[in-house]
This record gives sequence, C-alpha cells and structure tokens, in this order.
Amino acid sequence: MSERPLNIALIGYGGIGRVHAMAYRDIPFTYGLPARLVNLAAVATTRAETAEKAAKEIGCELYTANYHELLECPDIDLIDCCTPNSAHKDIILAAAKAGKHIYCEKPLAMNLLEAQEMLDAVQAAGVKTQMTFNFRFFPAILRAKELIEAGFLGRVFSFRGRYYRSSYIDPEKPLSWRLSKDVSGGGALFDLGSHIIDLLYYLLGPFASVQANLDTLIKERPIKAGSTEKGPVDVDDFALITARLASGTLGHIEISRMGTGVNNECLFEIYGDKGSIRFNAEDPSYLEVYDVRDSGTMRGFKKLETIGRYPGQKAPDGSMPTGFVRTHAECQYQFLKAIWEDRDGSPNFADGLHVQAIMEAAARAAKQGNWTEV
Amino acid sequence: MSERPLNIALIGYGGIGRVHAMAYRDIPFTYGLPARLVNLAAVATTRAETAEKAAKEIGCELYTANYHELLECPDIDLIDCCTPNSAHKDIILAAAKAGKHIYCEKPLAMNLLEAQEMLDAVQAAGVKTQMTFNFRFFPAILRAKELIEAGFLGRVFSFRGRYYRSSYIDPEKPLSWRLSKDVSGGGALFDLGSHIIDLLYYLLGPFASVQANLDTLIKERPIKAGSTEKGPVDVDDFALITARLASGTLGHIEISRMGTGVNNECLFEIYGDKGSIRFNAEDPSYLEVYDVRDSGTMRGFKKLETIGRYPGQKAPDGSMPTGFVRTHAECQYQFLKAIWEDRDGSPNFADGLHVQAIMEAAARAAKQGNWTEV
Amino acid sequence: MSERPLNIALIGYGGIGRVHAMAYRDIPFTYGLPARLVNLAAVATTRAETAEKAAKEIGCELYTANYHELLECPDIDLIDCCTPNSAHKDIILAAAKAGKHIYCEKPLAMNLLEAQEMLDAVQAAGVKTQMTFNFRFFPAILRAKELIEAGFLGRVFSFRGRYYRSSYIDPEKPLSWRLSKDVSGGGALFDLGSHIIDLLYYLLGPFASVQANLDTLIKERPIKAGSTEKGPVDVDDFALITARLASGTLGHIEISRMGTGVNNECLFEIYGDKGSIRFNAEDPSYLEVYDVRDSGTMRGFKKLETIGRYPGQKAPDGSMPTGFVRTHAECQYQFLKAIWEDRDGSPNFADGLHVQAIMEAAARAAKQGNWTEV
Amino acid sequence: MSERPLNIALIGYGGIGRVHAMAYRDIPFTYGLPARLVNLAAVATTRAETAEKAAKEIGCELYTANYHELLECPDIDLIDCCTPNSAHKDIILAAAKAGKHIYCEKPLAMNLLEAQEMLDAVQAAGVKTQMTFNFRFFPAILRAKELIEAGFLGRVFSFRGRYYRSSYIDPEKPLSWRLSKDVSGGGALFDLGSHIIDLLYYLLGPFASVQANLDTLIKERPIKAGSTEKGPVDVDDFALITARLASGTLGHIEISRMGTGVNNECLFEIYGDKGSIRFNAEDPSYLEVYDVRDSGTMRGFKKLETIGRYPGQKAPDGSMPTGFVRTHAECQYQFLKAIWEDRDGSPNFADGLHVQAIMEAAARAAKQGNWTEV
Repeated sequence: MSERPLNIALIGYGGIGRVHAMAYRDIPFTYGLPARLVNLAAVATTRAETAEKAAKEIGCELYTANYHELLECPDIDLIDCCTPNSAHKDIILAAAKAGKHIYCEKPLAMNLLEAQEMLDAVQAAGVKTQMTFNFRFFPAILRAKELIEAGFLGRVFSFRGRYYRSSYIDPEKPLSWRLSKDVSGGGALFDLGSHIIDLLYYLLGPFASVQANLDTLIKERPIKAGSTEKGPVDVDDFALITARLASGTLGHIEISRMGTGVNNECLFEIYGDKGSIRFNAEDPSYLEVYDVRDSGTMRGFKKLETIGRYPGQKAPDGSMPTGFVRTHAECQYQFLKAIWEDRDGSPNFADGLHVQAIMEAAARAAKQGNWTEV
Repeated sequence: MSERPLNIALIGYGGIGRVHAMAYRDIPFTYGLPARLVNLAAVATTRAETAEKAAKEIGCELYTANYHELLECPDIDLIDCCTPNSAHKDIILAAAKAGKHIYCEKPLAMNLLEAQEMLDAVQAAGVKTQMTFNFRFFPAILRAKELIEAGFLGRVFSFRGRYYRSSYIDPEKPLSWRLSKDVSGGGALFDLGSHIIDLLYYLLGPFASVQANLDTLIKERPIKAGSTEKGPVDVDDFALITARLASGTLGHIEISRMGTGVNNECLFEIYGDKGSIRFNAEDPSYLEVYDVRDSGTMRGFKKLETIGRYPGQKAPDGSMPTGFVRTHAECQYQFLKAIWEDRDGSPNFADGLHVQAIMEAAARAAKQGNWTEV
Repeated sequence: MSERPLNIALIGYGGIGRVHAMAYRDIPFTYGLPARLVNLAAVATTRAETAEKAAKEIGCELYTANYHELLECPDIDLIDCCTPNSAHKDIILAAAKAGKHIYCEKPLAMNLLEAQEMLDAVQAAGVKTQMTFNFRFFPAILRAKELIEAGFLGRVFSFRGRYYRSSYIDPEKPLSWRLSKDVSGGGALFDLGSHIIDLLYYLLGPFASVQANLDTLIKERPIKAGSTEKGPVDVDDFALITARLASGTLGHIEISRMGTGVNNECLFEIYGDKGSIRFNAEDPSYLEVYDVRDSGTMRGFKKLETIGRYPGQKAPDGSMPTGFVRTHAECQYQFLKAIWEDRDGSPNFADGLHVQAIMEAAARAAKQGNWTEV
Repeated sequence: MSERPLNIALIGYGGIGRVHAMAYRDIPFTYGLPARLVNLAAVATTRAETAEKAAKEIGCELYTANYHELLECPDIDLIDCCTPNSAHKDIILAAAKAGKHIYCEKPLAMNLLEAQEMLDAVQAAGVKTQMTFNFRFFPAILRAKELIEAGFLGRVFSFRGRYYRSSYIDPEKPLSWRLSKDVSGGGALFDLGSHIIDLLYYLLGPFASVQANLDTLIKERPIKAGSTEKGPVDVDDFALITARLASGTLGHIEISRMGTGVNNECLFEIYGDKGSIRFNAEDPSYLEVYDVRDSGTMRGFKKLETIGRYPGQKAPDGSMPTGFVRTHAECQYQFLKAIWEDRDGSPNFADGLHVQAIMEAAARAAKQGNWTEV
C-alpha cells in the first residue's frame, strides 16, 4: 500500500487540538511530502460557533458540532480525538464502528474497564490505532530505546521517573474539567503520570505491581476565574508511586501539578550494571549516557547530541532544537506511515490500556497502603 | 488598516525556505487567526522541476523558475527571499520596484555597498522590509530587551557574544555555496556572525569600532561529496572580534563553524553595575539574570522562565519549549502585523545594513591588525 | 566559659579518621584561632603498629591500641569516634562513664535499642555530644535552614531526597565491614541514608511513618581483593523510602550504592506554596531557590551564591569552593564552640537517635510492605 | 635524596598566607606522611604583633617582623613568599642569596625586568623554585594535560580562556594594595589574568603575540572603608586579550573583577580537529571532553569524573569534591617532592617569567592598539 492522501477529522479543538492541527501542517515540510497527503479535512467541536472558528483557522471546509456526521463521511480516513477524557469512549466506539482509524490523546480512558471496551472495539473493527504519547518521539527517547535494545544498560539496577509541573500552584486557578473526576477520570496521575509511565513502560517493559500515594494539596478552588465561590477538587494533584516492573526492577515515580517553580520536568534515570541513561524534557536535545565499558579514566556522563535529529528529516537542520510541536508531528507521522504500510500504530491502544492499568493500580494502592498488582 | 489576507511568494526553497514555509503555516494556530490571512501563495526556485516539487509540498498553485513572474503578479503582497546571498540584490531591487514588501534572510547583502543600494531602493519604493533575524524572537530575548530598556543592567561594564557550531569540522564535507566568497560574500562571519552581532546590536545599540581576526582553518575541501578532487575554501570559518560599542562598552565576539562538539551555541552575557543577563540558545527557554539590587544573602543568577511565553499565544501552552521554527514564525508574524498596521518591520533593512557594516569593518580590521571604524 | 584548649582523642584512623584529623588542623586557620586551642592529642586504633603510624601523621605523642587508656587520661576532653559502627556502643558507653565529651561518626548505632542505650548513657553522664552529620554544614544548607525558618517555603507541598553513589557497582569489589551486617548494622541505608535522612529531618522536622523497599543488587562478592572465593553480602545496597513527616508532608527518598555513573549525589528538593528549595552536593556552592512572591515575569530558580561563605571565616576567601573536608571542620568547630559555651552539640545524640529510628522503621517497612510508624 | 623534614618559613600572612599555612598542614593526612616532614617552622610579617599572632595560629615558635632573620637561620630550607607583589623582588633576591628554595605566589614580579632579575638570581644561586599556580593542580587540569599530551585534541583549531569575578563591583569597596600600581604592578590582568594565562600556557604552550584592551571601569574609590574621601584606582579591572600562540592558534582571553554575578569563573575551552576540552573552576570536579573518534551516534560532551582523584591520595575519598585549599596543598606537595628528588619545581620561575612577559605584552598592546610580540 503506497502513500495515498489521508483525510483527517479532528474532534475537539482546545489547546491540544490546536497543537495537533499545527503538527499535521508541519509534516509535509519536515519530510518533503506533498501537502495533499496529510489533509486535515474536518473538525468537530461541541458548538457550531467554535467549530466554524476552528475550521477557519485550519482552513478546512468541513466542520460540525456533531462528530457523528464526520464518521458518516466516507472520505474521512482517520479520526483524531482531542476531547476531554470522558468523551473518548463514545467517540472511539463510534469511530471503530464506522471503520475509521483512530489517533487518541492520552489517557485512553476514564478507567480500565472503559479502556478494555475500547480496545475490544477497535480490534473487532480491525481499525488501526495510535496513542498520542508524543514524549516517545523526542530524538533522545528514540535513541534511548535503541541503546537499551542493544544492551547498553546491561542488567537494570533501578530507575526513577518524574513528571513535575507547577501548573496548579496558584490557589486562585479556577475549577476546570481537568480538576473534575467525572470528566477527567483522574488528576495529575492521569494527565502527567500517563506520559512518564508510558515512557518507562516503553523503555523498560510492563509493570507488575505498585505502592502509591495520591494527595490533593489544594482541595477547593474558585468555580470560575475571579469568583469568590469555591467548589471541591476531587482529583489528585500529587502522586508518588513505587513500582516493581515485570522484570523485577524497582523504581520511584513522582508526579505533581504542584511542583512550585518546575515548568515541565518530565524526566527519567535508569541505572544498569553496564551503563546508565538520563533524560529530562527540560533539556530534551540531549540524552545523558554513562558507559561502564569505558576505561576508568575515561568514564563520565556524556550528553549525546540527539537534538532535532530525526532520520529522514528534510527541515529544519537537525542541529536545531526540537520543540513540543515537533514531537506531536513525529507521533502523527509515524501513525500515517503505519496506515500507509498497513501496520497498526505504535504506541497503540493496547499500550494505552497497559498505562491505564498501571494508573488504576496506583489509585487502588493509594487507598490500600500496600503493594497492589497491576 | 485591518487584518487582510496577505499573499506571500517564497523565493528560494532550500533548507531555510522549507523552514519559512512551515513557519507561515503555524501562524494561524499559534495566534488563533483564520488560515486565509497568511497565504503562502507562490514559490520560485531556479529550476522548474524543483519549483513544482516545492509547490506540492507547500500546497500552492503558483510556481516558477523565474521569480520575475511573481513580482508581476498583482495579488502577491510580500516577497520572502531565501536564496543564497549573491542573489539577494537583484531580487530585492526588482521586488522594491514592483512595490512588494520584502522579508529577507540574513545577511542582507554581499557587502556594505550592496546593502546601501538595497536600503535606498526599498526606501525609495516605500515598501516595508524585515530581516530574518529570528534569534531576536526567542521569548528570552524579548524579555532581555524589556529588562534592558527598563534599566535592569544599569551602566554596562562589558559584554560577550558567541556563535559557535561544529558544522564544518569534517574535512570531507564538500565545497558548497556557503564556502564560496562569490556566492556567500563571507563565511562563518556572515552566516553565524550576522545573528550574534544583530542580537548584541539589538540589545546594546550600535557598534563604533572593531579589532578582528578571520581564519580559514580548513583551506581546501572535496569539490563534491566523496570526490578526491579538492578545491579552495575562500571564506573564513573562524572569526574573533573585539568590539567597542557607540556607548563605549567593550566586548568580545567569537564565531566559528569549527567549534568541535558545539551544536548551536549562540550566546551572550552582559554585565552591568546593577545587574547581568546571560542567554544561550542551547537552553533557550530561560534567561539568566542577576540583580545587584537583591539583598546580599539573596543574590544569585536566576533562570527566568521565559520558555514559550509569547504574548497572545493560543497554542501551545507557554510552558512548552520553543523550537527553532517557532522563532521564525514569530519573526514572520511581527512583519505581517507591521504590514497590517502600516508600519515598517523590525528589524528592518536599516538594521540589516548596520550588521553588514559591522561585518565589513571586521573583515577590514582582520587585514589591518588594528582598530577599525564601523 | 571562655575558649580554652581542648584535647581531643581520635578513636579509629581509617579514611574518615584521617579526614577528621585534617579538619581539626584546619580550624585555627579558618577562624584565626591559636593552634593550641584545638589540640589533636591522641589516637587509638586496634593495633599498636597502625596507632603509631597514625600518631606520626598527626604529629601527636599519645597513641594506643587500647582506647581505654585514653579515657583514663584526665587531660583528654573529647573523644572522636571514627570506628566501624559495631564498635560505637562500647566506646561511647565507656567515654560517657569517663566523663568525656563525644563526637561520633554516623550512624550512631547498630540499631535503635543501642542508640537509646547510648543516649541514656550520655545524658546520665552529662557529657556533651555531637553527631558527624557534616552535610548540615555546607553554607547552602545553613542558608536553607535560615530560609525555611523565616517562612520562605510557606506550606510545604512535597519533598524528595536522594543519596546516590556508584561506589559498589564493580562486582569484583571485595567484601568489607561495610557489607557485613554484624559490623555495619546496615548497608546503603545506614551509610548514605543516614546523611540524607538527617538533612530532611533537620530542615523539615521529624518523620512519622514510612513505606520502604530494600534490595541487595549484588548478593555475593570476593572475600578479598582478587580472590575467586565469594561470600555473601547481607546488607542492602539500594533503598527506596516513601516518608510521611509529622507535619503530614509526603516525599520520596532514594538511596543507592549502585547508582552507576553517580559520584556523590546527595540532594533534596522541597516544594512549598510560597517557594521551593533545591540542593545537590554535586554542586554544593549554590542553593537553588524559587520565590512565588516574585512578580510573574521575574520568577525563576535562583542559584544563591552560598559557596564558601561561613560567618566569621578568615580564610579562604568566601568565594572559593567548599570542599568535603571543610564541612567536617565546620561540624567539629561548632562542637568545640558548644563545649566552650557549655551547650550541648547540634546535631546531638538525640538527633542521631531519631535518624536511627527512621532507618529502623524503613527496614521493618521493607519486610512488611506497608506503612510503618517511626 | 630521600624524604627528609623540610622547614618552611612563610613570609606574609594575609588571606593567602593563611591558605598556604592550612594547606601545608593538610599534606601529611592527604598522603599518609609523618607530620614532621612538612614543618611550617617560622612566619614573618611586617609587624611584630601580627607576626606573633600568626605564629600562634600556625603553632610555630619562630616569628619576626624582619624576614632576613629567617633567611639567616640555617635550619630553614624553604621560603614561601605570600606578600604583596612589590615586596617579591627583595625577598626572592635575598632568599636566593641565602640559598633557600623558594615558593612564590603569583604573579612573580611587578614587571618583566624584575622577573628576569629574579630568575637570574635563583639560577645563579642554584636554588629550586616553584610558582603558586595552584589552578594547575585541580585533578581535571592534570587530566587535561595528560589527554593533550596523548594527542586527544589533534590539531588545535581555537581556544578561549576567562577569569571573571565580581570582587570589585561594589563602588564603595575601598582602595587597597591590589588597586595600586605601585604595590601590585597591575590589576585584574595580574591578579586573575596570571592564573588563566598560566593554564593556557601550561596546556597549549608559549604565546607569540597579543592584541589587548585594558579598562578601569571604576576609576576612584573610598580611601578606606566608609570614607567619603576618594582616591584614584590606577590599575585595570577589566582586560580583553586576543592571543596568537607560538603554535599559530588564535584565541580570546577575558579577565574581569567586574563580572557582576560571577564568583570564580576561571574557565577555558579548547577545540581541536580530533576533540575538545572544557573546564570551569565553578564546577571543578569534572573535565568536559568531546571525542570526534566516537561514532556519529555516540558523540557528545562527556563530563569526565576527575573530582578529587589525585594519584596516591590517602584521604579524603577521591569521589569527594576538591576545595580550593586542596589545590594549594597539591601545588606545595609537588614542590616538596621536587626538593626531595632534587629536581626544580614545576611551574618554576621560568614559567612565572613567561606569564609575566605575556601580561607585559598585553599592557603594551592595550596602549598601541595592535598586535604586540610577547
């Protein structure tokens, strides 16, 4: 199956929807492809007015406040789901039924049961899926994966992962869907935790069991910006996990929206008997590696120059720093390639489900106070 | 004059042309604008074949191997010049004559005489101009400018600027237009030096005089990739400048394509009696500042979180890192805004000319061995 | 009680004994004191031969293989205990009985029971005590303590502590007293953990309960250097702790001798609603602080210049980096000052006992798999 | 000639004199030597009162306000000269005449003429000499020297050196001998410049010629602390040098006492066709190296773990950070070893003279505005 134009319908057009749209537009330039191959053809939101405005920004003809219309449209090949988490299930079940391929923002679902239902549906329908775990697509992460698969680490001694942001430290930041369990399914654990958990799973394999603690450090917030009326926050804003991988390795994971001063510290460190690897999204152009095989006087952490070096990239120059949007473009591009080559995407919904299972185990462990199976 | 659709013709479609194209496409999403306002309508290269391929990537109808056709086209509002340096003058004189606004990659010209001719032409024609000094448009640099204008530094003691890359350390990297004085006008000094010189000029004002040394560390290279035949490199790959600003302040500037191990170290440090400022494009999300007005026990360099925080930006979230393309989009957007608001761009061709004058003085100083007026 | 010469007897002269000796010698120069005030007068080891050699290095007259002789010596004011952990109890009980003040390397004891017995003994004897928790005496830590006491952090959201080294990653490193539970009482948790646990306790107050996991990643080692015969390692080399402080704050602590590539990463980060503080012994000259009270555009982590700035220091210049020995000299000097001013030392044996209680709770928690009271 | 006790007389006991004294005391512990081998036996200052106080700190019997008395003392083997620069010549000529070995703080002399006279005198007398260029004795620098001698860099493309401090940014800091040409011979160039120039000379060989600019940014200061009366500063506080080495390599050197916010940034970077090396005394435990011989995907700057790893060091553990005093102890120890082994010290007075020649050429170049031979 050769490269053919793919018509994409975007469902949801908040901040992350915009980023997805921008990223699709970048792909042809990045890889020297005809623009028509990546056709962002339609957009759906919940209101006709915002849908129309979105379509103007995107420059597409088709827009709607009823996404089912797009599913009925035979020209649409691919649904990109950028809605709040609680809307994922219906969209994905319907899209699968309509035979559309599906690209879905993380986390996959509100809970493990939903995730399983969605995975069953897409497998039954035979559509291809991919999760927006865009952090996997920093060149440094792709390089880490290669190194680990080539045995760079040797036996893994321990690991640590973190995703800390300071996005909710202002107690006057009002309630929103991300702070409501009914719409988000979870707080920092779901929003930020899904990224770092996925990275560790990607690099080190499945998780076996967890100890965890969830906390809600700010328990009520203004119901809207500037309001003196307050409502409850019913999701976590801080989560600590101790994880044992299926391989037996132990590690710590820290997740917070309340990391005062920290912008975007998605990081991990993995220590093995042959080498170590460190990554921090605050300095994503480099992968730090330490090689025990170096002679004693030549040992040290080396900052591998991964920068913007994607294989096959036409522009920009690979020595230029990779921005956030570029990781989305790469994640999308790999899905488009998978469709062109008639393979499932990677990470797919099965991967999304494992991440969901880990998060659900962490929530249970936090209630029980001891080790909980994934 | 309100926002109206602007039709842009891109002239030149090498690596940097692609980056410009990508950046235009990002603007509507970045600022929530209708896509039609930023219409990349046409592309010209030197051969019909490459022009057609470029048009396909861009998704535009109009393409040509003769850019004059585009100048004759009344719908085109704006020319974006991404050609090698030796082609700038003819294009810009013709575009000015045709009444087109002009956005031009750095450096403006092959030499100061050409630059003056171009400035005269655009001023005579009354068209608006802007230089692609995209480094000015990192949020950290915009913040530095604000701080300096607010008196943060106090009296400036000294400064240092550098642009080091390792792009030419491989002696087997073949000859190209960038290594030929006839096409480039200069080497590292022109290509990299123009960026760091512009940043210092932007932040600290005009230069008065310079001492300089230019070197060509690798003096011949294969005439093409893999060839055993070699030809001469007749431009510098390494330049050292000592500059005295019009304000009297002294500083060092270092420029190299031969900075083994250095990817993209465009940096400066400015020391004043009230404070200091440091920036490094290797870590562009932050501006380091030191404030003498802090009490003694609270002093230290602070990494201001400038990250992706552009005023008015809709996406992505301002805490996400700014990539290289984003700085181009911002530079372009500011020019579009200038056109909409009927102002000249900034930095404009007069700024491009001052940078050219500094580079020309440096080349003279390198020959003479002593202080040379700009 | 004014400054009078203090005669010190050092018991134990391995690597850390040497460091203590060096540090005592530095004190007069550091603070401009007469050398005779800090008189390292005697040394005891387990063998006459090593004791004599130690005395020659120190330049003292008195040496012995029977430390009781020194306790009987009325001129000795102060015992400094640098032996392996299993020897602490007898020495300290005897020294207390002899009315000597006691300076003791960490950890205080083999277990909590011993620690309590030692604390009871010194309190009954009315002698002054201090623990060698030398990390407290980096200027950055002293500054952190001041800031926290002044309310810099506000309400504490979370913390993290770590002490990672790579000191035991070589599987050919032979068995030693530090790898034997009978002599050390514990492994990485005791040796490294005591430092980071003490720092967190010092800055954030007592611990309430812990979850923990201990691992022995390399389970057997050569019985001596170069030997092919192997014996078991019966202490941990890797420990993960989740701690809840008495204040309610949650945090993670990681401790490892198997942190491949990591030299001496004793670090912590504390996040509060008004500010954050970060310290890393790999860069001990600075304390990173973030102040939420800064205006939005002036926020960022600041590296406070604490460097070698001890109050009252005569040499070296406070802008020169603080080495490891200097922290020991400061810890010792503060004990000497306490004796001169007739106060107990700080951190004293009661502090040593709390650290012991936390470590013991962690060991229990590791066995039980759930939250364990300190 | 085997190790025999060496009796040292210290002349001058200001801040740096204290550091020298402390460092001598550390040597036995550092290398497991008998204390009597390094006998700091006498001290001379300019007043009997300060000399007596110094002797008490040191714990030595002999002190005087007339250093000639010490030169007459046959037991004194070695003179350590820690006075202001203007006093060096008389002391050194007298010490040479008295047949004493000489250890001298940098810079050697007030000018090149004096330096030559001193070198002639010590050579005529056949005494051994060493300069206190203590920065050479960071383990990272010793490692850099080894790497360079082993050809790590290949052909050297360029270098940069800097020594920036902020020690004089406060305009109320009063006049002192360091700000008076009559006593110091020069300002930042002499005080700080001598260190970084020596490092570059040590690693890259002799200098051939220089361009330079010297500035006095604060031209008058209070005549004493708190005074409203001001007097002139007649030495530089800021110096920029462009240097061409005898090998032909070009580089920049920056020196300032007015580097607002900078504590102790003594750094260099050297770029070669086979590798690069970077060092910064703000992070002295590591040497950054880049090896072009690494395969393309494994390239990057590596932080070699040099830390406190001196060959033969007994304490402290080599993974503990090296403080400023330790570099002095190492520099002294190497001189003591040279005496024991009947070799001249290194760096010796001939090295001190070359550094003096470079500084004198820089001062001339600053007046002339063009290239000046060393």
